[in-house]
Amino acid sequence: MNAPITAAGAQMSLASMAFADWMNQVQAGMEHVLDRFLAPTTVVPARLHEAMRYTAMDGGKRVRPLLVYAAGDVFDTPPALLDRAAAAVEMIHVYSLVHDDMPCMDDDALRRGKPTVHVKYDEATALLVGDALQAQAFETLSAPLEAELKTDADLPARQLRMLNLLAQASGSVGMCGGQAIDLASVGMTLSLAELEQMHRLKTGALLRAAVMLGALGGKALTRDESAALDDYARAIGLAFQVVDDILDATADSATLGKTAGKDAADNKPTYVSILGLAESQALAERLRGDAHRALAPFGDKARRLRELADLIVHRKT
Amino acid sequence: MNAPITAAGAQMSLASMAFADWMNQVQAGMEHVLDRFLAPTTVVPARLHEAMRYTAMDGGKRVRPLLVYAAGDVFDTPPALLDRAAAAVEMIHVYSLVHDDMPCMDDDALRRGKPTVHVKYDEATALLVGDALQAQAFETLSAPLEAELKTDADLPARQLRMLNLLAQASGSVGMCGGQAIDLASVGMTLSLAELEQMHRLKTGALLRAAVMLGALGGKALTRDESAALDDYARAIGLAFQVVDDILDATADSATLGKTAGKDAADNKPTYVSILGLAESQALAERLRGDAHRALAPFGDKARRLRELADLIVHRKT
Repeated sequence: MNAPITAAGAQMSLASMAFADWMNQVQAGMEHVLDRFLAPTTVVPARLHEAMRYTAMDGGKRVRPLLVYAAGDVFDTPPALLDRAAAAVEMIHVYSLVHDDMPCMDDDALRRGKPTVHVKYDEATALLVGDALQAQAFETLSAPLEAELKTDADLPARQLRMLNLLAQASGSVGMCGGQAIDLASVGMTLSLAELEQMHRLKTGALLRAAVMLGALGGKALTRDESAALDDYARAIGLAFQVVDDILDATADSATLGKTAGKDAADNKPTYVSILGLAESQALAERLRGDAHRALAPFGDKARRLRELADLIVHRKT
Repeated sequence: MNAPITAAGAQMSLASMAFADWMNQVQAGMEHVLDRFLAPTTVVPARLHEAMRYTAMDGGKRVRPLLVYAAGDVFDTPPALLDRAAAAVEMIHVYSLVHDDMPCMDDDALRRGKPTVHVKYDEATALLVGDALQAQAFETLSAPLEAELKTDADLPARQLRMLNLLAQASGSVGMCGGQAIDLASVGMTLSLAELEQMHRLKTGALLRAAVMLGALGGKALTRDESAALDDYARAIGLAFQVVDDILDATADSATLGKTAGKDAADNKPTYVSILGLAESQALAERLRGDAHRALAPFGDKARRLRELADLIVHRKT
């Protein structure tokens, strides 16, 4: 198979890089990785492939791929497998945004500063773009890695575990389930526990999956390592949503690249509406501390995961 | 893992069964298989799980699962793996129907004699039901088969190939791609070759995948066996659509369990509109002959595949 073309392909030199440089390199690398795993626009149906690329290759923050590569560092996951895991989890994330933005869901016209797919193309195309991106995610992660297989007979079993984890995190007891709860909760008064459950599924499941995918592709995890990593993943997954709610309440649309203040306008329960702004900010900080503590057993190898916890809590968009 | 609970679990005694009895047994077995792999309605979010079951467990014809089990017979695929492959391909099929019926696509109110999901529930739920069923398909097929693994170390590699095949057949160069071409062709004059390409993707890809999934899970195929099986799969895939077009033009809604005459009303090109009724029927018969000829190398073990080719061409609904 082809050699990995992302930053992760040169882990040694990257380990000493400043975080911002590492992040920029992974983000730039993701454009190449997605370009490689998405069908070219010369392939029929051209318009569908064009729309898939329009929404997937737009330079998002790539938080989930960053988590995949950062976790892969800790467990020496083969770079070619990290590229596929990063692409797969990002494709799932992107498809969920496309469907989420549709008129029957959040009915949003703006995403990452561009018209959403159903606005730029049409609703039927948006539906198919999402469906096809989900299939592409599983195709990308299930492809045989011929070169790696020669020296790594256990690889198919690990790939299978990764696929199973990604599918679970995406489905009715993961991301889709969280969106169903979210829809049902519009205009309702949720308790903090109910809000947490919704977000644990809606955004937390896929963020957790990104961390675990990066880890599962490498050397076998001990039970303690698996539990520690899971603590980290759950903390940053929740923190991500708390900060999203804070930004939705405090930032403007131009900064966010999507419609700000939408949760309040839609009468959706958020951390800010339940806890208030100051308490939400304090919660995000506490979760950042939890994430750091969980990583203690992994020492310096988990440096990127620590930096990503900081990024998730301190980001401005 | 649990023992297989479908008809395929007792292949020896089933081999001598009349086709109708075998078919009924697989169809009834599929209800149990789907019940096992879909989340119960007691699991949150209950309404989403209820809607997934509403659409998946409604006693469809189960053509794709029948093809999976019939092909599995020829290549001695482990029954537990056949159950998972049959469930996965049926979940993909069912999700595509749910999304296809939505207002932004075909806007259909009736499916298998029942209100479609967006009519019975709502559009957002239909969107999520489809998304979650697709994820469930890949989760079901990627689960580790602990019992079989003990004596079959090659199993993960074969499962991976099956997942890759299913994902390809479902995505932008398979089923979703075919639907995109279908949408773009409304009101247009297609050549026979263009119509064939559309259907080869839209319905053919998943029917072919069903045959290949059943085969890939078992003993390694020779190049000739693989080519012969592919010839069979392509012939029945095309025949299925030709017969669908014939039925849409000749049967009534009550018999079909869906709105009849819809293609003509929607000004969609069909085999009947291009070739006429008599020529379409002759084409279906020729394809049935092709399918039979392709199976010659497999002798009596391919009996069910032959009978399914007959069923697909001679069915009345």
